[in-house]
Amino acid sequence: MDIKDLTPELLPFLGQSAYFELGVFESLARAVLIAPDLAAKQALSTAAGRALSKHQGLVAEIRRRGAEPADVMAPFVPALDAFRAEITGADWTELLLSCYLAGGLLDDFFIRLSDGLPGEVGPRIAHLLGEDAGAAILATQLAAAIATDAPLASHLALWGRRLVGDTLLIARSALAFAGTTDQAGVVTVAGPAEERIEPVFTELIAAHTRRMDGLGLTA
Amino acid sequence: MDIKDLTPELLPFLGQSAYFELGVFESLARAVLIAPDLAAKQALSTAAGRALSKHQGLVAEIRRRGAEPADVMAPFVPALDAFRAEITGADWTELLLSCYLAGGLLDDFFIRLSDGLPGEVGPRIAHLLGEDAGAAILATQLAAAIATDAPLASHLALWGRRLVGDTLLIARSALAFAGTTDQAGVVTVAGPAEERIEPVFTELIAAHTRRMDGLGLTA
Repeated sequence: MDIKDLTPELLPFLGQSAYFELGVFESLARAVLIAPDLAAKQALSTAAGRALSKHQGLVAEIRRRGAEPADVMAPFVPALDAFRAEITGADWTELLLSCYLAGGLLDDFFIRLSDGLPGEVGPRIAHLLGEDAGAAILATQLAAAIATDAPLASHLALWGRRLVGDTLLIARSALAFAGTTDQAGVVTVAGPAEERIEPVFTELIAAHTRRMDGLGLTA
Repeated sequence: MDIKDLTPELLPFLGQSAYFELGVFESLARAVLIAPDLAAKQALSTAAGRALSKHQGLVAEIRRRGAEPADVMAPFVPALDAFRAEITGADWTELLLSCYLAGGLLDDFFIRLSDGLPGEVGPRIAHLLGEDAGAAILATQLAAAIATDAPLASHLALWGRRLVGDTLLIARSALAFAGTTDQAGVVTVAGPAEERIEPVFTELIAAHTRRMDGLGLTA
């Protein structure tokens, strides 16, 4: 058993990932609005556009199935809005780090989950979500901010350690935990779900740690 | 003499129009953030993406000439930021109407000005700025808001009449008023600039009035 068995049905998958990407776009748009200088504003607008493209690609998949994007996304609004409020942070650098770390982790996670989608839609979505999210732009802006401000590095390291927990909870909430149902209708969950998905979460956390290390932040 | 003679040099033209489109993107991103429902948020994110594409196209033209976009846009930041603060409005509908009316008028204006740019860049920019800005999305959202709220129509009509003045001032500030210089260095301005550009402004105002009329607002 692997994570494929925990992939939700296609429309809920699309709804959750589409609303997540819309949220990344909104967070990056907010980062554009409060950017400290014009070069940062200009660069971040590119990253915001990338998140928007992912959202639009997922919305197109929803529409292709005759569904209304707002309806399909609606069930995921409360949890994702609460998550985004948690990780918005108190200032521009906290917000940027959240976009970089949570965006990176959840893009990776949804790509892994897309393995379990039926037919050709899985690879198509993995390709869409794997497109450049402007992570290098965020990393450059963060590295520049950290380089000129040593105490900021230890502050952001704390912030990064804090937000990974909330981010992993969102990932966990996306998993289908129903288990398998046999012909007699008996539901079997092969071992605790926690154990089955542990290797995937270990990978996600390793990639998170590399992102932190790349900025010189202790994970 | 026509408006071509009043087109600024290429780089200032690109800097001003690029920073203007970045501002439209920021205003629409703000409208996404405060949208009253998910369907509106989703639709407006598309319009924000269109403004961002225009900005990115203009930035690409700046980069193609070896210049740094932030440097080329910088001279236009104070006036355009002040303009955007003026037209942000007190709530979502005022902000949307500003995006719709000011965005429409200034896109039209920059397209007209691009006639005076050298070589092939003029038509290319006219094409870029003439691409769908998502105006239909904004008009639909505004019409829906107005349809359910009669007093809102008269309030927004006032707001629309107010912001056209500020918008025309921004257009006027973009014009090169230096006149023509002959071989002896004598500068000639053929008649008051106001008179020369009057027909263009008459057209811009007529298009503005059609946008207002389309929403049932008295211009």
